[in-house]
Amino acid sequence: MKVIVVGGVAAGMSFAARARRLNEDAQIIVLERGEYVSFANCGLPYFVGGEITDPDRLLVQTPQKLRNALNLDVRVRHEVTAVDTQAQTVTIQTTSGPTTETYDVLFLAPGAEAMRLPIPGIDSDRVLTLRTVDDARQMRAQVEAGIKRAVVLGAGFIGLEAAEALAQTGVDVTVVELADHVLPPLEVEVAHPVQDELGRLGIKTHLGVAASAIRPGAHSDTVVLADGTELQADLICLSAGVVPATAPFAAAGIETVRGAIVVDERGRTSAPNVYAAGDAVTSTDQITGEVRPVALAGPANRAGRLIADFVMRGEAARPLPRPLGTAIVRVGRLTAAMTGANRAALERNHIAHTTLHLHPNQHAGYFPGASQISLVVHIGEDGRLLGAQAVGGEGVDKRIDVLATAIRAQLHVEDLIDLDLSYSPPYGQAKDAVNLVGMVGANVLDGTLRLWYPAQYEEVAQSSLILDTRSRAEYETGYLPGSLNIPHTELRDRLDEVRGAASGRPVRVLCASGVRSAIAHRLLTQSGFDSASLSGGITSLRQYLGKRADTVIKV
Amino acid sequence: MKVIVVGGVAAGMSFAARARRLNEDAQIIVLERGEYVSFANCGLPYFVGGEITDPDRLLVQTPQKLRNALNLDVRVRHEVTAVDTQAQTVTIQTTSGPTTETYDVLFLAPGAEAMRLPIPGIDSDRVLTLRTVDDARQMRAQVEAGIKRAVVLGAGFIGLEAAEALAQTGVDVTVVELADHVLPPLEVEVAHPVQDELGRLGIKTHLGVAASAIRPGAHSDTVVLADGTELQADLICLSAGVVPATAPFAAAGIETVRGAIVVDERGRTSAPNVYAAGDAVTSTDQITGEVRPVALAGPANRAGRLIADFVMRGEAARPLPRPLGTAIVRVGRLTAAMTGANRAALERNHIAHTTLHLHPNQHAGYFPGASQISLVVHIGEDGRLLGAQAVGGEGVDKRIDVLATAIRAQLHVEDLIDLDLSYSPPYGQAKDAVNLVGMVGANVLDGTLRLWYPAQYEEVAQSSLILDTRSRAEYETGYLPGSLNIPHTELRDRLDEVRGAASGRPVRVLCASGVRSAIAHRLLTQSGFDSASLSGGITSLRQYLGKRADTVIKV
Repeated sequence: MKVIVVGGVAAGMSFAARARRLNEDAQIIVLERGEYVSFANCGLPYFVGGEITDPDRLLVQTPQKLRNALNLDVRVRHEVTAVDTQAQTVTIQTTSGPTTETYDVLFLAPGAEAMRLPIPGIDSDRVLTLRTVDDARQMRAQVEAGIKRAVVLGAGFIGLEAAEALAQTGVDVTVVELADHVLPPLEVEVAHPVQDELGRLGIKTHLGVAASAIRPGAHSDTVVLADGTELQADLICLSAGVVPATAPFAAAGIETVRGAIVVDERGRTSAPNVYAAGDAVTSTDQITGEVRPVALAGPANRAGRLIADFVMRGEAARPLPRPLGTAIVRVGRLTAAMTGANRAALERNHIAHTTLHLHPNQHAGYFPGASQISLVVHIGEDGRLLGAQAVGGEGVDKRIDVLATAIRAQLHVEDLIDLDLSYSPPYGQAKDAVNLVGMVGANVLDGTLRLWYPAQYEEVAQSSLILDTRSRAEYETGYLPGSLNIPHTELRDRLDEVRGAASGRPVRVLCASGVRSAIAHRLLTQSGFDSASLSGGITSLRQYLGKRADTVIKV
Repeated sequence: MKVIVVGGVAAGMSFAARARRLNEDAQIIVLERGEYVSFANCGLPYFVGGEITDPDRLLVQTPQKLRNALNLDVRVRHEVTAVDTQAQTVTIQTTSGPTTETYDVLFLAPGAEAMRLPIPGIDSDRVLTLRTVDDARQMRAQVEAGIKRAVVLGAGFIGLEAAEALAQTGVDVTVVELADHVLPPLEVEVAHPVQDELGRLGIKTHLGVAASAIRPGAHSDTVVLADGTELQADLICLSAGVVPATAPFAAAGIETVRGAIVVDERGRTSAPNVYAAGDAVTSTDQITGEVRPVALAGPANRAGRLIADFVMRGEAARPLPRPLGTAIVRVGRLTAAMTGANRAALERNHIAHTTLHLHPNQHAGYFPGASQISLVVHIGEDGRLLGAQAVGGEGVDKRIDVLATAIRAQLHVEDLIDLDLSYSPPYGQAKDAVNLVGMVGANVLDGTLRLWYPAQYEEVAQSSLILDTRSRAEYETGYLPGSLNIPHTELRDRLDEVRGAASGRPVRVLCASGVRSAIAHRLLTQSGFDSASLSGGITSLRQYLGKRADTVIKV
């Protein structure tokens, strides 16, 4: 069996290595258009920023090592330019001219390339991307040459990693993002704390605005924004998304959708004996059923391996899982992460859902170093877990991974109550953050708890009595105008005051994070009030409002 | 409805608080024999050690706060001494004499007490336990008074926390444990690294030996061990297990097993309208079906809440989950944790299982600070996850929580391949540690990988050729006598050498952690050898051997 693998990084190399382990006799040729295989693409920003100092650390494997360990025939600077799916041949551009190879099995893992914005000046030499080891070396060289100002176009995960890396070296960094908040896949209430952290790192942001042109200059370029702002830049990092690098394969008649190769749950393309995985292919979202590319390292690596199982072993192999799109980013002292569907995806697909906001500590409050994790969890009407996001310091990754596991296992929110998570004071709480999600979710589903939301604050202020159950001292640090402050510990004795102030209107309760207001809600609702508790409390309201919080919340 | 709650810490207070939130009208009386309610019992060692400096931090709630917030009638220094389950009354010993209360519902959460070892001198004033705030204050006072030497009896989770706390204050600490390794619920290969860490912290251990007497002295006591060793001690911390504090309830005819109150999945005892939860009750293990007390804070807190749901709402409430016994401990720079069944429990219950050992990094190897997590995972013959343990630095708690979630969801080991866990270089690897467990497990189940085990090293040395596939430099740092060293990168060209050396014997491969030997195994088995790969490699062998490694592994 002769196997040709196109692309020698995540999916391609996982496929090739697994194929060899299963089949000692196959001829396996890996064709990589770049200079390196199996390099640490997710590590590139940390090399730019100086956290990883030795560029050789980025090279996880070399062709020679792969030949020795796995008898793989790895050819770098070999770019596949055409495929004949009838004759089962590929045409390859090499440094010494074109050549062809036949195949019995063709595995396509060509990856994706940085999207080129269609604006004047985008081809300036000062525009760099951060996709390859060479990109990273070039950007690091610029930093070491003493550049002063950088503009990052795109505030997605890689954009923010690049921005922080550049800022760490002392470069003055400005990030431009078309969406109205950074990290667009995150909910606004999760993204706003990240924006604050960028500010703390000295990184400026221009949000809700496009770059309209890049004007090259002798000593620096000028990035012109649609609102007329002009930003001087010695370096422009382009991180406004990626496009699948699939032109030769689409030209060969292999089915694509918006440039991404269509594959089934075995990794099969529309052409016989041609498989594909990684950033260049579509997959079907577990929650929404949407078919789209998911450009993430984890699913790519795992898909390469599973498809090798199928190629070598047939139906007994495990089919590809539907991705949840779990993603995580470190920004300064914060971690932000997500798994499953976000609000926009749920709305786009008309999936009815309820959202929970919690701010539990990552470990026992009485143990030094306790800090809040802000969790946003979407659940279906039947309690099925649809998606979760979190932002905070320590412990964000753990909770998102536990929730990703729960979503994969199709648990319902109430099942989270029963998770036996590890507890001792340095690691968690007797009721872990994830257990608390289960408890709040169960309360909402069975009607024990009724929520109102940060997005409703204006409408609620018009129609209802807002009852703030925090202590007087907390209230004075910032409150909603017109709200009545009765600490939850005094509420039982002051219900008449609430009745008077409400004068028939609904009562909408809030506290700092939603715990005390839920207790107050139980008392109110059992005392005959139309009551609801603010999801996530004033902490979530502030996170939702972002900079607007200073005008909405009074002191 | 009049509700009496016996015990005001974890299960009792969770029950009382939830009962109030569900039922504003019930009369709820909490009777606590100690001076404090809802205190942070898991935090006590950290107060002794000085990490928590303010003892008030240990008091999560006070009777006054609970009255104000939840209208709970909390009575401390009230000890229930008898129950009449016919008349539905309890007799209470108070500081002003005995009294009685009737009940409609009785909830028992009396907890457990430190087991008193049946040895002479155990009642010495220098013997302290670490179960209550007063215990912790007393121990801290001793430390501040300048004691020099402490002996800790029992190397369980709390024993080691106490030992480290005392050592942190400069006290010379010796731990005595009857079992042959510390943390007896952990596998020996997980416990040995913890023993090494105790040594690094300057804590001495006497293992596999009982304390036989305590001889009081004028200036210090002498702890006498069964092997004749005598240890001087200014303070003796008794942490040799706990016994349910159930005497009055057993005397009332409520069914107990080995002192623990028997409850069903609703928390019902054998007496009508009497419920129980926490350290004093039995539960049924999810994996083994064993019925035993599980003295852990998490399950206690959650059970209190779920039983309140049942009492107030009936059958619609969620039944109690079967515990997995997830537990975690910090010892110096290490974290050790477990979930589900251990090897002893599986053997005791005749549950067929296979064990996997892995040592993946907690995050990308090329990112600064990468360190290994040693994982031990037991799976059933059908691949069902039965139990997992881990020891290492960062990231142990996350992997055990993910595995605890997977076990709760009854996932099979192959399902772990598909978990979409969060990955960026500071947090994980593209193939996370837990994904790798899935991959190794799937390989073992379908025969792609065949393992041999650290416990078999002597028998394998007799019967087989041991092939060490590490590099020459690694081999020279320590190897098994008689083993043949062929680096895995040279193996394909040197198969004849293996054939010659084996001369018909099986080949048993090893490397550092089991990755390269698995690759070698695939080559060997496809080349006609009877081959197997050492589970977890020489790292697991060293962890299994502990101090014996220095005699078994040559340099």
